[in-house]
Amino acid sequence: MSKQMVEKITNMDADFAQWYTDVVTKAELIDYSSVRGSMIIRPYGYAIWENIKAALDEEIKRTGHENVYMPLLIPESLLQKEKDHIEGFAPEVAWVTHGGDEKLAERLCIRPTSEVLFAEHYKNIIHSYRDLPKLYNQWANVVRWEKTTRPFLRTLEFLWQEGHTCHETEEEADAETTQMLGIYADICERVLAIPVVKGRKTEKEKFAGAKYTYTIESLMHDGKALQSGTSHNLGTGFAETFGIEFLNRTGKLQPVHQTSWGFTTRIIGAMIMVHGDDKGLVLPPAIAPIQVLIVPIAQHKEGVLDAAYALRNSLKTSVRINIDASDKKPGWKFNESEMKGIPIRLEIGPKDIENQQVVLVRRDTGEKICVQNHEIDKRIQSLLQEIQQSIFAKALEHRVNNTNVAFNMGDFKEQLLDGGGFIKAMWCGAQTCEDLIKEQTQATARCIPFEEEAVSDACVYCGKAAEELVYWAKAY
Amino acid sequence: MSKQMVEKITNMDADFAQWYTDVVTKAELIDYSSVRGSMIIRPYGYAIWENIKAALDEEIKRTGHENVYMPLLIPESLLQKEKDHIEGFAPEVAWVTHGGDEKLAERLCIRPTSEVLFAEHYKNIIHSYRDLPKLYNQWANVVRWEKTTRPFLRTLEFLWQEGHTCHETEEEADAETTQMLGIYADICERVLAIPVVKGRKTEKEKFAGAKYTYTIESLMHDGKALQSGTSHNLGTGFAETFGIEFLNRTGKLQPVHQTSWGFTTRIIGAMIMVHGDDKGLVLPPAIAPIQVLIVPIAQHKEGVLDAAYALRNSLKTSVRINIDASDKKPGWKFNESEMKGIPIRLEIGPKDIENQQVVLVRRDTGEKICVQNHEIDKRIQSLLQEIQQSIFAKALEHRVNNTNVAFNMGDFKEQLLDGGGFIKAMWCGAQTCEDLIKEQTQATARCIPFEEEAVSDACVYCGKAAEELVYWAKAY
Repeated sequence: MSKQMVEKITNMDADFAQWYTDVVTKAELIDYSSVRGSMIIRPYGYAIWENIKAALDEEIKRTGHENVYMPLLIPESLLQKEKDHIEGFAPEVAWVTHGGDEKLAERLCIRPTSEVLFAEHYKNIIHSYRDLPKLYNQWANVVRWEKTTRPFLRTLEFLWQEGHTCHETEEEADAETTQMLGIYADICERVLAIPVVKGRKTEKEKFAGAKYTYTIESLMHDGKALQSGTSHNLGTGFAETFGIEFLNRTGKLQPVHQTSWGFTTRIIGAMIMVHGDDKGLVLPPAIAPIQVLIVPIAQHKEGVLDAAYALRNSLKTSVRINIDASDKKPGWKFNESEMKGIPIRLEIGPKDIENQQVVLVRRDTGEKICVQNHEIDKRIQSLLQEIQQSIFAKALEHRVNNTNVAFNMGDFKEQLLDGGGFIKAMWCGAQTCEDLIKEQTQATARCIPFEEEAVSDACVYCGKAAEELVYWAKAY
Repeated sequence: MSKQMVEKITNMDADFAQWYTDVVTKAELIDYSSVRGSMIIRPYGYAIWENIKAALDEEIKRTGHENVYMPLLIPESLLQKEKDHIEGFAPEVAWVTHGGDEKLAERLCIRPTSEVLFAEHYKNIIHSYRDLPKLYNQWANVVRWEKTTRPFLRTLEFLWQEGHTCHETEEEADAETTQMLGIYADICERVLAIPVVKGRKTEKEKFAGAKYTYTIESLMHDGKALQSGTSHNLGTGFAETFGIEFLNRTGKLQPVHQTSWGFTTRIIGAMIMVHGDDKGLVLPPAIAPIQVLIVPIAQHKEGVLDAAYALRNSLKTSVRINIDASDKKPGWKFNESEMKGIPIRLEIGPKDIENQQVVLVRRDTGEKICVQNHEIDKRIQSLLQEIQQSIFAKALEHRVNNTNVAFNMGDFKEQLLDGGGFIKAMWCGAQTCEDLIKEQTQATARCIPFEEEAVSDACVYCGKAAEELVYWAKAY
C-alpha cells in the first residue's frame, strides 16, 4: 500500500474524474468489490463518516428528535400506496422475490427511502394532538438501482440519516423543514467547511410526493454543483393516503402535516471535491480522523523517538494525534500524510530537540511554522481553527469567482463552456423553459435561493416576465 | 398510549411468551409493521441499543479494531465460494432478482453475515506480514429468512456488529477469539447485568465454516437459555478458499488465520427476559435511557413544579434524568415508569420541599428511601450502582438455582419438566448422542464450559466414557 501512496495521482485540472478516483482509492477511503456499484468504506473513510455522523446526530438530538429503526424491506403494496412516490422510486428499487428456496407471495423492495414505513407506523401511534409533534430520525442504509455509479457520489447503496416528523399545523411543518435545512447548512459550513446556497427546488426537481423541497447546493472544484442535503415539507399528502389523523384541539379529526429530510455519505464526495488538491485529500480539522501526524526526523538518533512519543502522549487528550514511527523515509511519510489530507504535520528531529521546538506544517498551504515546546498545544489548537476557517474561505472564494449572471442563453452557454460554476439567471416559472435549458445545456435548476435577488425581469430562456432567480449548474 | 400503559400485562409465570410480547409493546420498545417478521425499533428501544452499542464500540476500539462498512448485497457466486458456509446460510437468505424493471444476470443475496465480503477485500489489501493483523469491525443490519419470529429474539432483519480479523499465526487468532468473547462477557455482565457461561460450541452447533466457535450463554427467567454472543476462529479455511495469502517473515506465502465475532439486538430480548417482572421492564442503570424519573406530587401546589425542574437541572449533568410533569395522576406515572423499567423514581411534593428532602423509589425492589437535599446527587449515584449490582446478583442466583446436574436421561428429562434451566451432564463427544438428546428433549448442547468440570465419567446418554461436561438447555 505504501508503494501506491507515493505514486503520482492524476493532475486534477487534467482529468478531474480520474483525480477523484485516484484520491478515494489511494487515500484508502474506499475499495471496490464484486458487488456492482457498491463500495467498501475502509477504516479511514468510515472514521470520517463517524465524525460527520456524531456532529449531525448531536444537532438532531439537541433539537428534540429521537432515533428509531425501521425495517429494510418494504412490501410492494405498501410502497404503491402513494402514487407520486412510487412513480418517483419504482424505476430504481431492488426487488427481493425469494426467501431461501421459497418464492414470495408479494415482492419486497429494499428501502430507497422510508416515508411509507414511517407513515404506516405514525398511523398506529398518533391519535390526538397530545401525541404531536413526533420527531423521529433513523440512521440507515438505502439502495437505489443506479446505472452509473461513482464512490460516495452515486452508489447502489449508501448510508444516510432520514428524518420523518409529524406536526399539528402547517406552520410547524414549515418551521421544521426550515430548521433542518439550517442544521444541514451549519454542518456543511461549520464542520465540513463547505459553503452552501440554501434554496427551494423547482416543481420538476422536488422530492416525489412532497409539497416542496428545500436544498443546500455546493460547488465543486471543477465547476459542477452537488446537492448536499434536502429537507421536504410533505404537506398532508402521505397523511391523507395513509390515514394519519388526529383529534385536534377543537375535537375534529384532521391529517398531520409531515416533513422528511436526509443527509448522506455523498457529502464525503463533496468534501473531497471542494477541498482536495493535486497532492490528495485536504480534510477539515473538525472531522479529520487524525488532526496531527508526528513525523520524527532522523528517528534512529538517540532521543528522537522518545521525544516524539512523549509529545504524542502529552497532546493526545486535546487533539487526535498519531505518530508515524515506521522505517519509511520522512519524504515518503510526508507524501502519505498529504495524500490522506491530515491537517497538520509535526516534524521533530535532533536539532528541534536541541532548540526546544518543533516544526508544524499546514496541509492546506504548506506553510512551515517553528513553535517553542511550551506553546505547542496552544498553537496546534489555534492552527486547527485557522485551517478550518481558511479552507472554508478558499472554497467560498472559489464559489464567488465561479458564480456568474446570465441574461440570455448566449451568456448561459458561454459560461458553461468557460468553467461552469453557478449561473444565476431569471426564470419565468414554466417547466418547458426548465426542460429546454436542461436539454440544450445539461444544466439543471439547482435551487431558487432563499436570499431573493432579481438580476433582470425577463426569463433567460423565453424572455417573458420572470420574478424568480434560479441557480443553474451542471451537477453531480 | 398512556391508557395502554396501565392496562395489566400478562403474569409472567402464567404465560411467559405473552408476558414478553406485552412488555416489548407496552414499554414501547417495538411496534409491528406490514413487513413480516421485522420490527420497528421505537425511540425507547433504540436508545437502549444506542447505549449498548456505545459501550461495546468503545471496547472494540480500545482493543485496536477499526470500523468499516461493507456492501449489503452479495453476488450468489461469491457466497457460494465457501462450501460449508453456503450450506449453512443458503436456506435462510433473501434473494434480490430484479433492479428496477430489469432482471439481474446474477442473483444477489442480502447479507446474512459478511465473511465472504471481508475475505474478498482482505485478499486485495493483505500481501505481507507487515499488513497484519487486520482488525476490522462493522455495525450493520443483516437478514435471515426465519420462519418463526419474535421481537429482538429472532427477526428477519436484525442489527449487529460483526468483527472480522486476519492474523499471522494460529496463536494470535486463538487469542483474538478469546479476547472478543471476553469483551462480550464483560458487556453482558458489567453493562447489562446478565451473568453468562463462557464456553465452546460442539461441532454440530458451531458456525458454518469455522474451525471452532466460542459462545456466551445466559439463562432466562423461564429456564430457557439464550446464546448471547459468539466468537469464531475461522482457521485458514476462508483464506485458502479466497486466496488471502501473505509473505511471512521467512519469505514464504501462507494463508492468514481469521476470526469473526458478532453481537446483536437479540441481547435486548435477553435483558428483558433476565430482569423483567410482572410490572414490566427492569433496566440495568448502565444502559437505561432514563435513569431517574422525577414525579412531582400535588404538582398544582405552588412551588412543586419549580422545585422539580430546579432539581432536574441540577442533576442533569451527572445522571440521565427526566421529569413527568404531564397532567396524569401520580399513580399512573408510577405505573408507566415501572413498565419502562426506569431504575429510580424520584418523588417530590409539598411536604418533601418543607422537609428539604425527596423520596427515591427503586424499580427493582420497590424500596423507598428518604434523602436529604444535599445528599441527593451522591445517593443517586450510589443507588444506581447498587441496583446494577443487585440485579446482576439476583440473575446469578436464579441461574445457580436453575443449574442442575444430570447423570442419566431420567434425571435429564425430569429436570427439564421441573422448570428447565441449565443441565450439566457429561457427553462422550459422539454427535449421535447429541442428536438423540435433542430429538428426545428439545434441549441442545449450549456449550462446553471453559471452566472444566467432571461430574461423572459416563455419557449422560449412552453411558460410555465421557470427558467433557456440557451445559444443555432448551434455548431461544
